[in-house]
Amino acid sequence: MTGKLFVIGTGPGNPDQMTPEALRAVEASSEFFGYFPYIDRLNLRPDQIKVASDNREELNRAQAALTRATAGVNVCVVSGGDPGVFAMAAAVCEAIDAGPEEWKTVDLVVVPGVTAMLAVAARIGAPLGHDFCAISLSDNLKPWEIIEKRLRMVCEAGLVIALYNPISKARPWQLGKAFEILRETLPAETPVIFGRAAGRPDERMLVMPLGQAEADRADMATCVVIGSPETRVIARPGLPDLVYTPRFLRDVSR
Amino acid sequence: MTGKLFVIGTGPGNPDQMTPEALRAVEASSEFFGYFPYIDRLNLRPDQIKVASDNREELNRAQAALTRATAGVNVCVVSGGDPGVFAMAAAVCEAIDAGPEEWKTVDLVVVPGVTAMLAVAARIGAPLGHDFCAISLSDNLKPWEIIEKRLRMVCEAGLVIALYNPISKARPWQLGKAFEILRETLPAETPVIFGRAAGRPDERMLVMPLGQAEADRADMATCVVIGSPETRVIARPGLPDLVYTPRFLRDVSR
Repeated sequence: MTGKLFVIGTGPGNPDQMTPEALRAVEASSEFFGYFPYIDRLNLRPDQIKVASDNREELNRAQAALTRATAGVNVCVVSGGDPGVFAMAAAVCEAIDAGPEEWKTVDLVVVPGVTAMLAVAARIGAPLGHDFCAISLSDNLKPWEIIEKRLRMVCEAGLVIALYNPISKARPWQLGKAFEILRETLPAETPVIFGRAAGRPDERMLVMPLGQAEADRADMATCVVIGSPETRVIARPGLPDLVYTPRFLRDVSR
Repeated sequence: MTGKLFVIGTGPGNPDQMTPEALRAVEASSEFFGYFPYIDRLNLRPDQIKVASDNREELNRAQAALTRATAGVNVCVVSGGDPGVFAMAAAVCEAIDAGPEEWKTVDLVVVPGVTAMLAVAARIGAPLGHDFCAISLSDNLKPWEIIEKRLRMVCEAGLVIALYNPISKARPWQLGKAFEILRETLPAETPVIFGRAAGRPDERMLVMPLGQAEADRADMATCVVIGSPETRVIARPGLPDLVYTPRFLRDVSR
């Protein structure tokens, strides 16, 4: 009999945003596979083994976890946020799909979590209150031309856009280029939210109009949310601005 | 001084998928405003007051909660799933935006949660593993023509699509029409997931090819996820199929 293979999300990093279901999966597991900052969020017992790995090694990590689960060990693959959004659940499925037949028999349990865009949205109001999309800006795993095409189309479709993986040392220009593309279609005053480390002590929320948005306001821990033409900003005396997208769409865009 | 106004999400309904942060907001609140099935998910104390209302009364409910918070009461507005996704956080912001100036001074705290599409995705594999969008199929709040346009564009852009509010007694034909539109562009074998009541005792997960997808498989408690042309199904001996969208996009769609 195989062990269980849990794939969990820790949420954005605030322990209060991790679900009891994810905590129980942690308690039930013996070995932990993940990017080390995510594993470090867990309070593991001395008998629980950490197998930390680097950011880019998702497939190897998934294969290592499947090998151990097949050997009968209860293992936990750890993602930040939600494991199904640009994270480890897909990597585990890829490994199962291409791997030995016995990996298909592993008892896989994916545990959902609070993904970054939801935590950022909550801190700032309700920018995802109407139709929206989530797009990874990383061109490591897909051609940049596809990303450009998608940005143009979702923008024309009027969706709010959450950008994951907006920038890194190896990908310094993509976010600036994305802003350029969006400026071709969206009004200059469209609110852009730079939501960094939502819910964590080093949280930083910044709102600025698309016309002035600069890529260097983001880092690897940032989720960038770009409003639609419907998105509104509410100024509040003595409090940060609220940003929200109304549930109602007036019949003007036809 | 005003009271706090929490806007929380209970998650999809399984108490294990509600965050400690949301539970603490419940403990700190005296009056609860929400659609009654969501309020019923909470274990309230005898001194905590329920102000339940019907599904369609979001704006009235938000205004009532703001009035009480302005009077100094700690109130909690309750959504299912995540409060920022087609739910009460936007309604509260709309009420603040259009309401009396003093509502802008209310201490608003939005608490994120696990939204339905994430819970459904987790139960079935990783269908949201690559770029995706969330679209409400309700034409109560936006013209149907806009919904059709958005479906065509996100489909052409290659995004996985999560449909919220797919069907109701008052909106019986929209989901069938959406499937027709998507069939014009997507291959007939594209997986469609009918994810009902994920994580609850009455959960029902169903996967079928778009070519055979029928609207009557969905009800009001269903989130429908439609794959992209990249989405794959893994058959497993003795276990339900896994559905996932690879993180990697091959350079063929140019």
